[in-house]
Amino acid sequence: MIGVPGTPIAAPLVAMVGGGQLARMTHQAAIALGQTLRVLAAAPDDPAAQVSPDVVVGSHTNLDDLRRVALGADVVTFDHEHVPNELLEKLVAEGVNVAPPPQALVHAQDKLVMRERLAALDAPVPRFAGVSRLDELDRVDAFAGRVGGPIVVKAVRGGYDGRGVRMARDVAQAREAADKFLASGVPVLVEERVEMRRELAALVARSPFGQGAAWPVVQTVQRDGICVEVIAPAPGLDDDVGAEAQQLALRLAAELGVVGVLAVELFETTDGRLLVNELAMRPHNSGHWTMDGARTSQFEQHLRAVLDYPLGDTGATVPVTVMANVLGAPRTPTMTVDERLHHLFARMPEARVHLYGKGERPGRKIGHVNFLGSDDAEVANLRERAALAAHWLSHGQWTDGWEPHG
Amino acid sequence: MIGVPGTPIAAPLVAMVGGGQLARMTHQAAIALGQTLRVLAAAPDDPAAQVSPDVVVGSHTNLDDLRRVALGADVVTFDHEHVPNELLEKLVAEGVNVAPPPQALVHAQDKLVMRERLAALDAPVPRFAGVSRLDELDRVDAFAGRVGGPIVVKAVRGGYDGRGVRMARDVAQAREAADKFLASGVPVLVEERVEMRRELAALVARSPFGQGAAWPVVQTVQRDGICVEVIAPAPGLDDDVGAEAQQLALRLAAELGVVGVLAVELFETTDGRLLVNELAMRPHNSGHWTMDGARTSQFEQHLRAVLDYPLGDTGATVPVTVMANVLGAPRTPTMTVDERLHHLFARMPEARVHLYGKGERPGRKIGHVNFLGSDDAEVANLRERAALAAHWLSHGQWTDGWEPHG
Repeated sequence: MIGVPGTPIAAPLVAMVGGGQLARMTHQAAIALGQTLRVLAAAPDDPAAQVSPDVVVGSHTNLDDLRRVALGADVVTFDHEHVPNELLEKLVAEGVNVAPPPQALVHAQDKLVMRERLAALDAPVPRFAGVSRLDELDRVDAFAGRVGGPIVVKAVRGGYDGRGVRMARDVAQAREAADKFLASGVPVLVEERVEMRRELAALVARSPFGQGAAWPVVQTVQRDGICVEVIAPAPGLDDDVGAEAQQLALRLAAELGVVGVLAVELFETTDGRLLVNELAMRPHNSGHWTMDGARTSQFEQHLRAVLDYPLGDTGATVPVTVMANVLGAPRTPTMTVDERLHHLFARMPEARVHLYGKGERPGRKIGHVNFLGSDDAEVANLRERAALAAHWLSHGQWTDGWEPHG
Repeated sequence: MIGVPGTPIAAPLVAMVGGGQLARMTHQAAIALGQTLRVLAAAPDDPAAQVSPDVVVGSHTNLDDLRRVALGADVVTFDHEHVPNELLEKLVAEGVNVAPPPQALVHAQDKLVMRERLAALDAPVPRFAGVSRLDELDRVDAFAGRVGGPIVVKAVRGGYDGRGVRMARDVAQAREAADKFLASGVPVLVEERVEMRRELAALVARSPFGQGAAWPVVQTVQRDGICVEVIAPAPGLDDDVGAEAQQLALRLAAELGVVGVLAVELFETTDGRLLVNELAMRPHNSGHWTMDGARTSQFEQHLRAVLDYPLGDTGATVPVTVMANVLGAPRTPTMTVDERLHHLFARMPEARVHLYGKGERPGRKIGHVNFLGSDDAEVANLRERAALAAHWLSHGQWTDGWEPHG
């Protein structure tokens, strides 16, 4: 509600719970739209808190902190899905506009709730079973017997970037993994391990008015359960399969009552079917390419959706974009990030770099790079350059032996 | 110098004098590069101060305020050219890294110094003469006699957006205008009024290392001395003339010792020659299209240049981009900016909007819109849509009579 002299402006105030990189990049988008983004950050040096003047330091599990960030905001939204649903229900009861609403968000918080709902909606999912208590462990055996192949054991809550997921080779391993999660109080989802060609993601946004918009479907590449690379659009994707993925994501957004961005992570099976793996209801790693490669970025679109603006054009700006995550190296290089950035720019002036202001730790997402191509045929080259750039930024080493002064 | 747990990061700190929209948009670019932008703002609700956590409130004509914003910064740069050069000389003497350095910046501060230097460098400029004191007024007559056509009278300092410029039909008018400026203590530049086809701008960046990079040359359209529209690239521009403009701008950046972005405003004469009109040494209105239409925006490039990073790819992302300024209406509409934005997005989901968080005043730049085209042939259509969008955002009226619920 601030403005330089002249007729005062009345800018929307969006409160985002979480001060990570997603909030940081949402702040960039809010600036362009003349909005104010307030963040609830765990610490004053969280990625978003470093760059935004409107920061509430507190915990996303504390109702009073949530009330503080919500005070006077047009809407409360999220940079992660870890806010206890019962606290959100309380906020809603107090008249706070929460987007996505808790009854939608629960499907991104609890994998078993999500699987059961999706199955009820006839959305394609891997075969699964839920195990809620230790005395139900025999269900693992029964499920394994029914599936007859390798199975995956997942904690239904709290996992991300591969945490909370165990690949089991046999029933004994599956029981052991399930036992561990259940003993720590977390229910378990067991599901068939799908024979897949690759992973895809369908990113859409939905507004309270009911408008939906879908970006081109992308291919995601994971390593150790962490997304390392995204190719937009997914190379060689059958048009019908792409349209099916978009329609599925738009339908789920509507059926679940999502407000904001919805990422639907998908398996493309070896026999060409789509199965839903995970849902996220916020800007998502699979949409970072949109910052440079799409007419409207996922961060702007999320703001537009939660504020019930008409949604933006989701078309690609260029024929192909490759995104690579910068993941902290096992050993932090002696060269600073800033020095590495100098060297990267010297070799690759076309790299689009996004850094999160995070300290370096092994495997931690500290930034991403986008590479834009003017021709589909560039995909292989873009992937190679993106991987080189991301590895250089985190490790301070060129994996192809490049020596600038050699 | 902040970072979340893990190895601490050492992010460059850039200090920008001025808290206007250029600083606001530079902050967006700094976020992506993991940098901190500190701004010296005149008021806590200046456009950049609204969105940045690192704000020094003070005056750009106060040495102590300049010292405060410079403290600990890697470099001090500018969102306008109004800092007295003698204060910058003092900062430099105290060891502050000022970019562009004062001896370069003076050419963007004083039109007479600029014209004389450019003439000495054999750069093409309109014929001109300087008049420093009231008792030299007869020089106006002499110059007018030599030129034999309409002349322009300009205050050598302090003008922008058409202020400080008078078009004179005859010698009497020219004398009168010069007299007024001189009486208020400002020296005067008189120059021939050029027969021109259109105005162009060549935008380049230069780093201390000496690297230069040029964006495609654009056409700028002014109304009442204020830029209202930019077309990138300039339609139908002869390749040789475009290359000449880029080379001229790169040469001037090097000869003048510019560090950062340099905008060279040009006249394209009816007989196809280029003449330099003005210089600006900062991100410039003629480069706002780069935020959506170029691989590297002028804001990121300015940061890279002043920090002596290798410069970014200046290529266009799409074949044509049209930028239109949103200029405050004579009467502020009853509908809020936010409501107007809703309506704009409903009609034009492809509009790329950049708002500055400024109160509305007649003629004031409060934002800009970019429209991207995938084909040169779209120029006319893009211009029409950009003009409609910009007018709607400021006036709350569709000039083509559009009625959404009609």
